[in-house]
Amino acid sequence: MTKEEVLQSLAIETDSKLIMTVIDGIGGLPVRGKTELEAAKIPNLDRLASKSICGLIDPISYGITPGSGPSHLALFGYDPFRFEIGRGVMEALGIGLKLTEEDLTARGNFATIDENGIIVDRRAGRISTEKNQEICQFLQNEIREVDGIRVSIYPGKEHRFVIVFQGEGLKDNLIDADPQKDGKKAKGTESLTAEAQRTAEIVNAYLKKATEALKLFHPANTILLRGFSKIPNIPSMFERFKLKPAAIATYPMYRGLARLVGMDVLETGETLRDEVETLKNNFNRYDFFYIHFKKTDSAGEDGDFKKKVKAIEEIDRILPSILKLKPDVLVVTGDHSTPAVLKSHSWHPNPILLYSKYTRPDGIRRFTERQCQKGQLGRFPAMEIIPLMLANGLKLKKFGA
Amino acid sequence: MTKEEVLQSLAIETDSKLIMTVIDGIGGLPVRGKTELEAAKIPNLDRLASKSICGLIDPISYGITPGSGPSHLALFGYDPFRFEIGRGVMEALGIGLKLTEEDLTARGNFATIDENGIIVDRRAGRISTEKNQEICQFLQNEIREVDGIRVSIYPGKEHRFVIVFQGEGLKDNLIDADPQKDGKKAKGTESLTAEAQRTAEIVNAYLKKATEALKLFHPANTILLRGFSKIPNIPSMFERFKLKPAAIATYPMYRGLARLVGMDVLETGETLRDEVETLKNNFNRYDFFYIHFKKTDSAGEDGDFKKKVKAIEEIDRILPSILKLKPDVLVVTGDHSTPAVLKSHSWHPNPILLYSKYTRPDGIRRFTERQCQKGQLGRFPAMEIIPLMLANGLKLKKFGA
Repeated sequence: MTKEEVLQSLAIETDSKLIMTVIDGIGGLPVRGKTELEAAKIPNLDRLASKSICGLIDPISYGITPGSGPSHLALFGYDPFRFEIGRGVMEALGIGLKLTEEDLTARGNFATIDENGIIVDRRAGRISTEKNQEICQFLQNEIREVDGIRVSIYPGKEHRFVIVFQGEGLKDNLIDADPQKDGKKAKGTESLTAEAQRTAEIVNAYLKKATEALKLFHPANTILLRGFSKIPNIPSMFERFKLKPAAIATYPMYRGLARLVGMDVLETGETLRDEVETLKNNFNRYDFFYIHFKKTDSAGEDGDFKKKVKAIEEIDRILPSILKLKPDVLVVTGDHSTPAVLKSHSWHPNPILLYSKYTRPDGIRRFTERQCQKGQLGRFPAMEIIPLMLANGLKLKKFGA
Repeated sequence: MTKEEVLQSLAIETDSKLIMTVIDGIGGLPVRGKTELEAAKIPNLDRLASKSICGLIDPISYGITPGSGPSHLALFGYDPFRFEIGRGVMEALGIGLKLTEEDLTARGNFATIDENGIIVDRRAGRISTEKNQEICQFLQNEIREVDGIRVSIYPGKEHRFVIVFQGEGLKDNLIDADPQKDGKKAKGTESLTAEAQRTAEIVNAYLKKATEALKLFHPANTILLRGFSKIPNIPSMFERFKLKPAAIATYPMYRGLARLVGMDVLETGETLRDEVETLKNNFNRYDFFYIHFKKTDSAGEDGDFKKKVKAIEEIDRILPSILKLKPDVLVVTGDHSTPAVLKSHSWHPNPILLYSKYTRPDGIRRFTERQCQKGQLGRFPAMEIIPLMLANGLKLKKFGA
């Protein structure tokens, strides 16, 4: 049996409650000797760390910087190399679309072509978001379907949009209908397998109609599509781990990712307090909770060290209300690092603490990257967190006799 | 996708410079409480360690003692279980032969047979190296080719030689033409697959001719061949990692190994100073440098603890000239341990430090096995070093959205 199969065969349903707290982009890099966590005043997290076991997680693997998709799959216990989430799907989740297994998505750009069909601007002069919304509405009214397949187009920012093809038999083995460079002819897609042939024809028919319809919309006189994808066939967390999971997150992308692994996505408000309130109100209804805090990542992406420190401190202040629920297992970690220094996601490992009554606490005094590294969890891949949580919740039977 | 495929898809070319410093056989075992590294005075390495992230690498896997072939493949980022380098190829690289994909190599022994073809001494009484050279020259003149396949024979030490068959369609799926025991009949090789049938016939025809030619050379009156192999089909480091790599090493084997993964092998002198001078003179021409220091391993193989300590200290003194080049990422580690106590390669993990501006330094004060073990890199497989170096050189894009 594979390790996955073994885990699946050992998982049992129990009443114990597990909470996974994900502080987005928590890991950082030193500025004047201290990382964001090291600079923050976080007495509650520090105290909890001292009663927990600690370590460092690699979201994916040594040196790999993850997008939110793969890093969350790993946190949810799935091999991020095996289950891939395409670009179109991520974009669709990002704007809150609920996709079914029949939907084919792609990321789109409005673009400019000349009279010979040569792309002169892949971004249509970065038209305004308002103009984009206007053109999307026009296109949506002009072309509602192709050959029985419904087509829906959703505006994003500037020249970007998401497109969804809905109907039976659509496949995603398609190459990008986007040469990724100006000065080339805008071509349609091509199918990579015979079974995707019809899908390619439908997409290309749509592209032709759309370009005709956009004739008078210069500079947005054509569209480019890439990242054709359908939601991957992922077994649910119930199937894999016998968990009844719920997600609490404010941003659509994380809500969408949670839905992909079969979590119930709970309605919640905008603030940390709203999210914790939602946790409290639903605590009896589920046995696994994923609660996501976003602000740390946004501050890191802005390169704002101080703002990230403040966001971490805000989370620290909310921690006692989570502890008050007396979860059997509480994990605090991140999906990836977002050091203010880099203004982006990074490959650096994240600190993790796991609190449960069945541990040998490390006695580590601070919840920081460099202190957690000294803990007994060592440095390990994020996809091992769920098995550890299950074990500490006494939700895994013995393997073998 | 596999992890390998993912890494390949993420790698990008940039200007940043990576240096991998390999101290051959660096890891040791304690004598009177201290390993070779612990006994050495290495202020420069110690200072660098304090500004780096540290850990322990397993060249291959727990408990496995590597030869130089697999351990270098791992250092270069290749799975040493997947890419195998045969004995014949290693011997050929060791004497500085440049092999092409058509060449079939084997390791050879001169041996003694009696009138019935029974092997009475697999090593022909360990004839002198001079005698060996003489016989090889004679054989080379006697038999230059078999059935259109060129045969070249290169003397080694005592009874040992390397043989290379050159020509189209040669295969290496052959069993050893060497029973590995005295008292058995010297038999030819056999093909393991139908396509290797012709190769086996050619090798056996050569063996027959050689034995005839050697009739009067008792005790060296026959030859035994083993480790038939061709260079493995390894994607280059450019293909895999988009690196423009160069190798600086004085021994032929390491130069040959570097060539197998597509490195440019730079001409250099015999001393450490020569090697570092070569690094300096070529620093603008490449973005990855493998620099190999051999003396530590030789001292370990000799069982000479003090000599190994001295060799380590010599490398420490050269370190500042490497640092002066201001590489973006500098790794110092070894390919395997060679404890003087064991007088051989061993399975023990090696210390590693990685220096770059995008780390959270461990603050470790000494570059030793037991201090590095406390660092945040933890204990990990050597083949993860390249992904880490790429990441720290900002040479890897984000994985997924």
